[in-house]
Amino acid sequence: MSKLGVVIIGLNGAVASTMIAGVHLMLQGHAPRHGMLTEANDQGPGLTERLDLVPLEGLVFGGWDLDDGDLYQAALRHNVLHPASLGQVRDALEAITPWPAVFEKRWAQALDATHLVPTSAHRAQIAAITQHIEGFKAAHGLDRVVLLNLASTERYQAELPVHASLAAFEAGLDADDAAISPTMRYLYAANALGIPHANFTPSLSNIPALAEQAEACGVPFAGMDGKTGQTLVKTAIGGMFRVRRLFVEGWYSTNILGNNDGRVLDEPGSNETKVRSKSSVLDSVVGHVVPNHQIHIHYYKPRGDAKEAWDNIDMIGFAGAPMQMKINFLCQDSILAAPVALDLVRLLDVGQRRGERGIARHLSLFFKSPHHADGEAPVHDLYAQEQLLMDWVNAQA
Amino acid sequence: MSKLGVVIIGLNGAVASTMIAGVHLMLQGHAPRHGMLTEANDQGPGLTERLDLVPLEGLVFGGWDLDDGDLYQAALRHNVLHPASLGQVRDALEAITPWPAVFEKRWAQALDATHLVPTSAHRAQIAAITQHIEGFKAAHGLDRVVLLNLASTERYQAELPVHASLAAFEAGLDADDAAISPTMRYLYAANALGIPHANFTPSLSNIPALAEQAEACGVPFAGMDGKTGQTLVKTAIGGMFRVRRLFVEGWYSTNILGNNDGRVLDEPGSNETKVRSKSSVLDSVVGHVVPNHQIHIHYYKPRGDAKEAWDNIDMIGFAGAPMQMKINFLCQDSILAAPVALDLVRLLDVGQRRGERGIARHLSLFFKSPHHADGEAPVHDLYAQEQLLMDWVNAQA
Amino acid sequence: MSKLGVVIIGLNGAVASTMIAGVHLMLQGHAPRHGMLTEANDQGPGLTERLDLVPLEGLVFGGWDLDDGDLYQAALRHNVLHPASLGQVRDALEAITPWPAVFEKRWAQALDATHLVPTSAHRAQIAAITQHIEGFKAAHGLDRVVLLNLASTERYQAELPVHASLAAFEAGLDADDAAISPTMRYLYAANALGIPHANFTPSLSNIPALAEQAEACGVPFAGMDGKTGQTLVKTAIGGMFRVRRLFVEGWYSTNILGNNDGRVLDEPGSNETKVRSKSSVLDSVVGHVVPNHQIHIHYYKPRGDAKEAWDNIDMIGFAGAPMQMKINFLCQDSILAAPVALDLVRLLDVGQRRGERGIARHLSLFFKSPHHADGEAPVHDLYAQEQLLMDWVNAQA
Amino acid sequence: MSKLGVVIIGLNGAVASTMIAGVHLMLQGHAPRHGMLTEANDQGPGLTERLDLVPLEGLVFGGWDLDDGDLYQAALRHNVLHPASLGQVRDALEAITPWPAVFEKRWAQALDATHLVPTSAHRAQIAAITQHIEGFKAAHGLDRVVLLNLASTERYQAELPVHASLAAFEAGLDADDAAISPTMRYLYAANALGIPHANFTPSLSNIPALAEQAEACGVPFAGMDGKTGQTLVKTAIGGMFRVRRLFVEGWYSTNILGNNDGRVLDEPGSNETKVRSKSSVLDSVVGHVVPNHQIHIHYYKPRGDAKEAWDNIDMIGFAGAPMQMKINFLCQDSILAAPVALDLVRLLDVGQRRGERGIARHLSLFFKSPHHADGEAPVHDLYAQEQLLMDWVNAQA
Repeated sequence: MSKLGVVIIGLNGAVASTMIAGVHLMLQGHAPRHGMLTEANDQGPGLTERLDLVPLEGLVFGGWDLDDGDLYQAALRHNVLHPASLGQVRDALEAITPWPAVFEKRWAQALDATHLVPTSAHRAQIAAITQHIEGFKAAHGLDRVVLLNLASTERYQAELPVHASLAAFEAGLDADDAAISPTMRYLYAANALGIPHANFTPSLSNIPALAEQAEACGVPFAGMDGKTGQTLVKTAIGGMFRVRRLFVEGWYSTNILGNNDGRVLDEPGSNETKVRSKSSVLDSVVGHVVPNHQIHIHYYKPRGDAKEAWDNIDMIGFAGAPMQMKINFLCQDSILAAPVALDLVRLLDVGQRRGERGIARHLSLFFKSPHHADGEAPVHDLYAQEQLLMDWVNAQA
Repeated sequence: MSKLGVVIIGLNGAVASTMIAGVHLMLQGHAPRHGMLTEANDQGPGLTERLDLVPLEGLVFGGWDLDDGDLYQAALRHNVLHPASLGQVRDALEAITPWPAVFEKRWAQALDATHLVPTSAHRAQIAAITQHIEGFKAAHGLDRVVLLNLASTERYQAELPVHASLAAFEAGLDADDAAISPTMRYLYAANALGIPHANFTPSLSNIPALAEQAEACGVPFAGMDGKTGQTLVKTAIGGMFRVRRLFVEGWYSTNILGNNDGRVLDEPGSNETKVRSKSSVLDSVVGHVVPNHQIHIHYYKPRGDAKEAWDNIDMIGFAGAPMQMKINFLCQDSILAAPVALDLVRLLDVGQRRGERGIARHLSLFFKSPHHADGEAPVHDLYAQEQLLMDWVNAQA
Repeated sequence: MSKLGVVIIGLNGAVASTMIAGVHLMLQGHAPRHGMLTEANDQGPGLTERLDLVPLEGLVFGGWDLDDGDLYQAALRHNVLHPASLGQVRDALEAITPWPAVFEKRWAQALDATHLVPTSAHRAQIAAITQHIEGFKAAHGLDRVVLLNLASTERYQAELPVHASLAAFEAGLDADDAAISPTMRYLYAANALGIPHANFTPSLSNIPALAEQAEACGVPFAGMDGKTGQTLVKTAIGGMFRVRRLFVEGWYSTNILGNNDGRVLDEPGSNETKVRSKSSVLDSVVGHVVPNHQIHIHYYKPRGDAKEAWDNIDMIGFAGAPMQMKINFLCQDSILAAPVALDLVRLLDVGQRRGERGIARHLSLFFKSPHHADGEAPVHDLYAQEQLLMDWVNAQA
Repeated sequence: MSKLGVVIIGLNGAVASTMIAGVHLMLQGHAPRHGMLTEANDQGPGLTERLDLVPLEGLVFGGWDLDDGDLYQAALRHNVLHPASLGQVRDALEAITPWPAVFEKRWAQALDATHLVPTSAHRAQIAAITQHIEGFKAAHGLDRVVLLNLASTERYQAELPVHASLAAFEAGLDADDAAISPTMRYLYAANALGIPHANFTPSLSNIPALAEQAEACGVPFAGMDGKTGQTLVKTAIGGMFRVRRLFVEGWYSTNILGNNDGRVLDEPGSNETKVRSKSSVLDSVVGHVVPNHQIHIHYYKPRGDAKEAWDNIDMIGFAGAPMQMKINFLCQDSILAAPVALDLVRLLDVGQRRGERGIARHLSLFFKSPHHADGEAPVHDLYAQEQLLMDWVNAQA
């Protein structure tokens, strides 16, 4: 059995801690294997019979965080899985502590950062990241590594000339250019090491410079912004309006969540990044421009990680008659995200072993704003995305 | 321009009266052309550029009903379109009155029938139906005719030997066999006349005897049970649970409606027919057997035709965590049904002109319980059904 | 400190086991003291400063059940409080096991009964009940005792001549009259012992015979049918329609629950008892007869004790304009019921010490169908009921 | 029969035009008399038998607006009542056109004003208002007049020294002080004319200066901010949490509306005024400080006047168990407001005839932020407010 390292930006966050705790709970037989396409369960074999996937036993986790506590403390604090469940895998979680992170406060005002690499120079930070990964690989005898970005959303950053080519980007690194975000520094390091990566956040990452580097280094990558709650629902049910030619006059979406992610998204800079990512989806799914589409996200403490979405849809039907639909999704942010992150890790790994590089478009299924090449339209409809993935699976087999 | 007759069982019902009023409102420019794949509107051309469809102007409506009033009175009573809108097409609606119907009260206890053909003998009734259609065709100089069953749901009827072959069925007609429902008598007449037909109700109609006759007579047909409110939603969003491998532990559905349909469905016999039709759908869409699936339908007068569905879905996600979704659809039964009925008429007509006969499986998109041949699995997922239709369209082009 | 015994019909049920576990959790400081008027908490002193209430430390629990396991096993099975919480009070719960019950299956078809007193004669059963209580009182050195009926709902029983007077009732006991329900036998024993009692179920109990006996024996009593979820909401918000003169054209209520109570209520006999109790409330609260009031209760396993109610209200406002409201209450049956049961016990005890007897009308606040004397109208409005209680408190002070 | 003039700030707004159209529809028998305490209907006599109320026939309407069209055009544009209904009272509505208004754009940025009195001097504006009212009174032979403020919400204005006494205020008028809002200028004119007034908006009006003047002039007045949708619901159901001692951990409220009011409230200044008014209510009703109370209001065009509120409530019950409630109110802003405005007019008129002056506290029932004297606590609970009104009615009788 090959061993696959998973290095995570945001190791002590709710998604990462839930994912890792969940893997150990599944390995010990305490939890069912729901939520993943890459695991067999009582719903069927998933993709396990079709692809040469690394088994759960082969995954080894590490990563960076602004918090320096161990993963057990982090998971308890996020309160996603019950303390009694976490107690069952306490030893495994206590054994994992994060490496110091690369970060500056202006990228997410709501976060306090004390556990940082001791340098503000881009090149030195990248060297530190590289050293963390290589040390991890050696210490655990890993065959390969995949990187996941599960950090908080960075404030909105438009694409600039420094992002436009690898040469410009590297000059920017030399100059500690402020437009090169922490995320970009991590991904640069990953590319250089030949490590596939997935950006589960809406933070800007699919810039020409990094795409150029990934191609050159033989690195497949995927992103961006994991499709979990409300947007998942939109891209599932949105097609109904297209199929029945119901004109969607308005779609009002509100979200309440009380986890750290919610706290960051209540800050206008990060909120803009997120709302842009969520907004792009709807029109292509319903088949026309929706004239009144609103998305609101609010930090609401009582709910913790148990995110709630309420959607109101106004549609016009036959003979101009108005109708309405309300959808209330009482979900759990990290419970929806964790299995998708695991799917991404294993599918990127298969891709790399088969010689793929660049944008892994067949993984669009997992993202709110799927990366796509210039000139290509992103595929948002959930079932069209499923088809993309299955076409890729069938092509492999 | 060719002229296409549309003969309707249940002419004075809410769906038929809404459909016909809507056609006239659209023709006069008072209503937008939403809800149909067979009309162009501001959402795009629909299928109008791909298929040789009869235009709205070419449709001529007639049919049977237990009520003997004109269509304007019927439409006012159903209160689906506003009286002011109906006033705009009053003349056109007043010009249409139904032929006497074929019916016996035991097929729907809640209905009172006074406007009936003056015979209880099956063969004589079929002769009357035939005469109605031929007279209508002659009177309007029609090129072709399509039949729509928009009547109330008949009580549950299991398939019996008398339905198993055309020979047995015809012997049953001779003997006035009580298991040959009114619906079957209408469809027998339609087949004999070479008229395509769609069964928009869940009343039993796809029996071997009638399928055999349709093949022999060159008749394409489609059914059954128009997919409008809650089931439409289920087959749109249900795939989300499959795609994300969320285990659906339970799906509780309740429906309230206050129209005539609701009154009939509150009667246990008809309710059973309907619930059977609605229940068959879910498992194939979500990808596993849903252990707790409940469907309730209640007659609730205040709502009239403005049907409301409330669904609660319980699902199990990663690490066994439970989540919930609620969907509240404030729709209008007839507003959703009428355009689908129009699509069916025009697409069946295209099919017949192209030489098709038997089950029109590519029209599964419009039905809760799509007809399918022995050995074939019905396709329920809305997007898979859309694909079936588009494959048929592409094959035609 | 005086010691008050609490003897419970249905000791191993969800409400009783939650109540007793909750008392121990509060006493040990593991749970906040929410939900009760008879406890002080961060919302204020409640009634603790106004009345001479027995403290939680003074309560001692016992009772009867069809199940013979200990209370810890029962609480685990009901899955209301988390196993980890129950673990904190395991010893206290394991120390309590029920006495054999009085029951016949025809009173609740869904229940299986094996733990029964070994006689079917009414008088002998009453002797057994008496012996249980007296033994309990002696064993724990109790000052006083209150009885709570927390059993499953019995099938609907109309009031008959045998219920009309104490003499007729006692003749019925001698004759083992089938119309004397198990509940009535328990209450007869309680009255004879001078023990106050509250009927938290809708099973028939406020019959003239027992009222006559209670008066004679100096016993205050209260009932019936604890007001917890949907009905609680109705009597809180219903007054809004009265205050604003919004005409309530219809109120459609549906309930899903997956606990034992739900299983019993899915059985038609018990369902009728419950729906009658729930229906009586609305008209008096909204101020007019609601022409379309429907209540549905369904057993739906995924939800367990986490009962859910969905209400749709149709109202007519100014100038005849229609409006709607939907209320979705995601509650927990036993979490709402347990504190109310505790309040009842302590308030009945205060009443008896002050010399009250007969119907404790000031406790209407806690019931769906408050007992009332002949010629009195029941008070249903939640705030009018609150006033009744506060008037009683003020009169005491 | 006495004739009562009703002069309205915001005559062409949705509430005023609905109210006036509704009165004419009721007078002509086209609409039921729902929604008012001051009319008898099939729910009972209301207060008509208890108080000497001016009948609908005795009401004569006039007022000011930024728009100069007639009331029929205004009512059509607001699209609250159906055009067919408005057609039935077209003549009556066309006969009413507004007087030019007093306004400056900085008080509500979203409004465009062209129909203004031709002076910016406060004293001259007040003279114009006075002249409008006196001319109206003479033209219609009115016995008395009441003023209603149904204008858009002005931006938030804190209380300043200029508002603190009548002397300071009048000096401010002389100096055209910018802190004296249009609303205050209208109310000053009303007071001087001895006209009772109600402020249906949250715009600052209950300042010491105007209270002093009202006392001196014998004017009763009421306010502020009509309690219609979400806040009405909060003060009805909020008491349930108090009665059952359920700790309300959070209450998240969102509102969508697409009328002019919504457009104004989407502007931050006016939004602040409104949210302050809505926020003050909850704590006193539920009986404790709610730690997480959020209110959001969004302009959402598809909904028009058909305002929708969605509330999520998180509560903690017995043994610390969390529960949730969702309330979805599909209401119509003006349909709820219009009858309340009529009630206010008639009850203020009765009060004045009986010699009342100053704050009409017994009318708290109709307001989100009921005026109260210094040192008094406002009463928010709907049922306590109802009691206040009934006490006043009983005292009158």
